[in-house]
Amino acid sequence: QSEEENNRTELSELGEFALIDSISEKVKIQLDSTIKGIGDDAAVVDYKGMETVISTDMLIEGVHFDLSYVPLKHLGYKAVAVNLSDILAMNAIPQHITVSVALSNRFSKEAIDELYSGILNACSTYQVDLIGGDTTSSVSGLVISVTAVGAAKKENLVYRDGAKEGNLLVTTGDLGGAYMGLQMLEREKEIFKDSANVQPDFTGMEYILERQLKPEPRKDAILELETMGVKPTSMIDISDGLASEIFHLCKSSKLGIELYEEKIPIDQETFDIALENHLDPTVCALSGGEDYELLFSVDINEFEKFKAHPLFKVIGHFIDEGQGYNLIAKNGTRHELQAQGWNSFKK
Amino acid sequence: QSEEENNRTELSELGEFALIDSISEKVKIQLDSTIKGIGDDAAVVDYKGMETVISTDMLIEGVHFDLSYVPLKHLGYKAVAVNLSDILAMNAIPQHITVSVALSNRFSKEAIDELYSGILNACSTYQVDLIGGDTTSSVSGLVISVTAVGAAKKENLVYRDGAKEGNLLVTTGDLGGAYMGLQMLEREKEIFKDSANVQPDFTGMEYILERQLKPEPRKDAILELETMGVKPTSMIDISDGLASEIFHLCKSSKLGIELYEEKIPIDQETFDIALENHLDPTVCALSGGEDYELLFSVDINEFEKFKAHPLFKVIGHFIDEGQGYNLIAKNGTRHELQAQGWNSFKK
Repeated sequence: QSEEENNRTELSELGEFALIDSISEKVKIQLDSTIKGIGDDAAVVDYKGMETVISTDMLIEGVHFDLSYVPLKHLGYKAVAVNLSDILAMNAIPQHITVSVALSNRFSKEAIDELYSGILNACSTYQVDLIGGDTTSSVSGLVISVTAVGAAKKENLVYRDGAKEGNLLVTTGDLGGAYMGLQMLEREKEIFKDSANVQPDFTGMEYILERQLKPEPRKDAILELETMGVKPTSMIDISDGLASEIFHLCKSSKLGIELYEEKIPIDQETFDIALENHLDPTVCALSGGEDYELLFSVDINEFEKFKAHPLFKVIGHFIDEGQGYNLIAKNGTRHELQAQGWNSFKK
Repeated sequence: QSEEENNRTELSELGEFALIDSISEKVKIQLDSTIKGIGDDAAVVDYKGMETVISTDMLIEGVHFDLSYVPLKHLGYKAVAVNLSDILAMNAIPQHITVSVALSNRFSKEAIDELYSGILNACSTYQVDLIGGDTTSSVSGLVISVTAVGAAKKENLVYRDGAKEGNLLVTTGDLGGAYMGLQMLEREKEIFKDSANVQPDFTGMEYILERQLKPEPRKDAILELETMGVKPTSMIDISDGLASEIFHLCKSSKLGIELYEEKIPIDQETFDIALENHLDPTVCALSGGEDYELLFSVDINEFEKFKAHPLFKVIGHFIDEGQGYNLIAKNGTRHELQAQGWNSFKK
């Protein structure tokens, strides 16, 4: 602890321009589409006549993350990842981000370096250039606002409203893990609140913690769809939970759904830890958020391409709107699907 | 006050989705370039092969604004205006914005409506479409993050680094007013802190208050330059004060400057109130920020077009870097120009 304090550079000593310079130095431009990055009034990018796709998200300390168990490096990575996921959900390729950060003097320059190392790691992993942003002080907590920009040919874009009756519902990975990871982090925080010297033991929870702390947007799935020659008819990313995202696709496309419980992919670790904690794994998958998998619809004639594909799982199909939202349970019974959206204003 | 309370809708009752819906309803799409606005994972815009220009800014309550004297409507307008100014400073036309807002439960829905009425007023005035954003709760103050996106032909873009020796330095309007407006608002806040029933008298300060509370980015000047057939060689917007922005142009372009004090445009109201408050009007123009005028360099052969143009004022010229940064005072004496950047981490 004392060594850490020795290596602490105060932001008030450093100043805003020096902080920005120290961040800018670490930014490497990877893409030909970046005409002008950090250092002018605005950044300039060239998408060669393709459509520009834009998404933005704001993360607030104490609302979206808890620094008592989220390492700053992971926070930076995740803040970028969730925005790239939104661009991918349009069937577009993310290319650029801007990152604005507000932070109080309780953060040192070294802490900010940690945060940006995560941000730049995500940029490098997903071949995205950081081209601008804002760094300012905050009177209280940490605020991170990321805007992601990508490009796609007009004819490749996929919206939420294009699903057709009979289309298959497909997802890209197992669900509920990020939610279970959060539950475990919250539980350990409670247990160890008054015993600072005891270290929590997360053995056997590595996967769900990684799902919560370091989600990976599914650029691989988007590239694979292109290779397969498949264009989804509608698509969304799973940020709020499977049920809530299904409702978005259904409502936008004016359709109903049949979702098969036995098809919903749930990782074994997620499943076991849910049961240990008296939670229904299916409910975790349906209502737990932050998995950042993709959810899309495709024509039923594409079934052969998807039925045994390792990146994809067919979990249901779209039906007439009048037939409603149905979950077919493992025992064959039919239930009305319940959404449980997340409302940050009610806690 | 009691009537206001009767008309108060709590955000916790309303919920995040209903709040977003109530905002989205008021958004009108004005531009053909907007392919998809609010309502999907990301927005889609089409700049028809032009370059995409991106700028972002974050405003924090207690750091960048004080709600005790800044009306929410003006705050919304200004948050948009300052970002549009950055796009214009690239000689690009702003077309789209995203707005993310974090707010605590102390704000009512009616207060948020005020904020967005200012945001949408700026959109309408500057022909910009609001295409996305994020609305979330905050554990403390109000945070507003705006990203502005615009378009320009590649050959029309103007950067900070293109000024040449002998180029004229031109600005678009009077300076120091926004700073004087802020001083008056701060002074009245101090005086009336303990006398809530006394109303401050701002008679005769209308112009400087408007400069501070409702800055207008100079889209008119950018359009006029196009009409005149003039492309600046370098450009920046004046957000931190004239001296600081001159340094940015000089350092990027590797040049020195001769700036003429007598040429610096200062409005009479700014001038008088500065003197009344024992401030040097020139220092206010040089170091006071937030005027959001444009500052640019043009070839000396363009002088005839600018010398009597009502939108522009030639205030100096660029010289060799080795000759430094010079302010030629009204009495003919030569002084080294001092910059006084703003550091939000030191207060």
